Amino acid sequence: MKTEELVAQIKKKKSFLCVGLDTDLDKIPAHLLKEEDPIFSFNKAIIDATQEFCVAYKPNIAFYEAYGLQGWQSLQKTIDYLSTNYPEQFTIADAKRGDIGNTSTRYAKAFFETLNFDSITIAPYMGKDSVEPFLAFEDKHTILLALTSNKGAFDFQTQLVKGEALYKEVLRTSKTYANAKNLMYVVGATKAAYLKEIRQIIPESFLLVPGVGAQGGSLKEVCDYGMTKDIGLLVNSSRGIIYASNGIDFAEEAGKKAMQLQQDMQLELEKR
Amino acid sequence: MKTEELVAQIKKKKSFLCVGLDTDLDKIPAHLLKEEDPIFSFNKAIIDATQEFCVAYKPNIAFYEAYGLQGWQSLQKTIDYLSTNYPEQFTIADAKRGDIGNTSTRYAKAFFETLNFDSITIAPYMGKDSVEPFLAFEDKHTILLALTSNKGAFDFQTQLVKGEALYKEVLRTSKTYANAKNLMYVVGATKAAYLKEIRQIIPESFLLVPGVGAQGGSLKEVCDYGMTKDIGLLVNSSRGIIYASNGIDFAEEAGKKAMQLQQDMQLELEKR
Repeated sequence: MKTEELVAQIKKKKSFLCVGLDTDLDKIPAHLLKEEDPIFSFNKAIIDATQEFCVAYKPNIAFYEAYGLQGWQSLQKTIDYLSTNYPEQFTIADAKRGDIGNTSTRYAKAFFETLNFDSITIAPYMGKDSVEPFLAFEDKHTILLALTSNKGAFDFQTQLVKGEALYKEVLRTSKTYANAKNLMYVVGATKAAYLKEIRQIIPESFLLVPGVGAQGGSLKEVCDYGMTKDIGLLVNSSRGIIYASNGIDFAEEAGKKAMQLQQDMQLELEKR
Repeated sequence: MKTEELVAQIKKKKSFLCVGLDTDLDKIPAHLLKEEDPIFSFNKAIIDATQEFCVAYKPNIAFYEAYGLQGWQSLQKTIDYLSTNYPEQFTIADAKRGDIGNTSTRYAKAFFETLNFDSITIAPYMGKDSVEPFLAFEDKHTILLALTSNKGAFDFQTQLVKGEALYKEVLRTSKTYANAKNLMYVVGATKAAYLKEIRQIIPESFLLVPGVGAQGGSLKEVCDYGMTKDIGLLVNSSRGIIYASNGIDFAEEAGKKAMQLQQDMQLELEKR
């Protein structure tokens, strides 16, 4: 998907919500466990109930890999369901990959071609030649970890390198990569105050923002400091939406949570 | 597998060779493409021909994910084949994962339980709470990226943080993690000269060393600077062994390459 198409969807739906599909057999409603593929059944119902209020879906690949072959099958069916029924949705493989060049190329094939995701999250530790193979795919997006939402973000990401935080060095350096226009960045909402400085380095890039809700981030702050003229934000919510209820009304309740977030987003959009 | 069992295997076989299974349908012998599962057929033949000379196998997960469901199936069959027929072999999922805590736990389940690998490679960028979930598994090993063998290693890993290189900060910090005894580290052979300083920080931990051969690293230097009294090294070779020939003699030629490396390793072991 082209960035302009994503922006058009955001403006049309007045939403920059991404729904995280961290689907866990221990947390989904018990009545679904009788289905042939409970993970896919759950995802399908969640997607149908929330798609009107969001512009992106982000399956967290770990949750599928944990179930081996069966999980990989559920992931494939989920992404196929999305591209067949809701091709306007931007899809993110939350995979946090990154390896030497020839190996990164294989991961890119796995997620951009075999599974046909629009984007993938990537860890920067191994540097330029581990990231560029992903950037070589046209109309595909590489979402580089910059400043994550977890406590461990302060272990290395905020350490000073050449007088400024490592995550800023990551942002700055990545701008010189071949096809850097295909870069987006992960910036945790739990660190909204950092967004002002981040926007000085990457004024227009899209940011994938986890951590609003369950992890304590504020939507208003994220918008105040992070929004660009083309919005430039995808705010993710996973558990807060998909596990809103674990009864037979789970999809309906997920839809309501997504709608609430969409309405909050609409207010933020109309303020500006 | 317990570390002592790995050490005992190394001493018995006089080898600390790890064979990397970066299996690529474009590179395996053409006659295998007619088989039902060419990737598994290739791996099986390579394993049978090399197992006598090595102590570990390292499937590179990207190469399997690139083929989607089919690839995941080949991976499962490969790891099952190893544990059934050669349970003394140490198995490494070269996956370079790492995410927030609850997600890292899912990756740990995927590789340590569902696939039953002995170890996995992990990227440190997200810090302590992204690594510790892997360390919680008894007799399983977490191989943290410290200094990788690629050019991009100089982008961030060698940048100075608190007056010393980031990879050293990673090494030092990781020693304080819960169950740090389950840590091993990736250190590229292309940077053997760094091993002396690395050994000052982690004198006894096992190192997984890629980059000998194809990428230009020297076995002698790795041993001179990196070997401990319990050896403490697993030296990986992938392409140099598995693609030694792409004719019908591919397994035999792979066996010869593995044997050569084992003999070189035996010489190094006998020197000390």
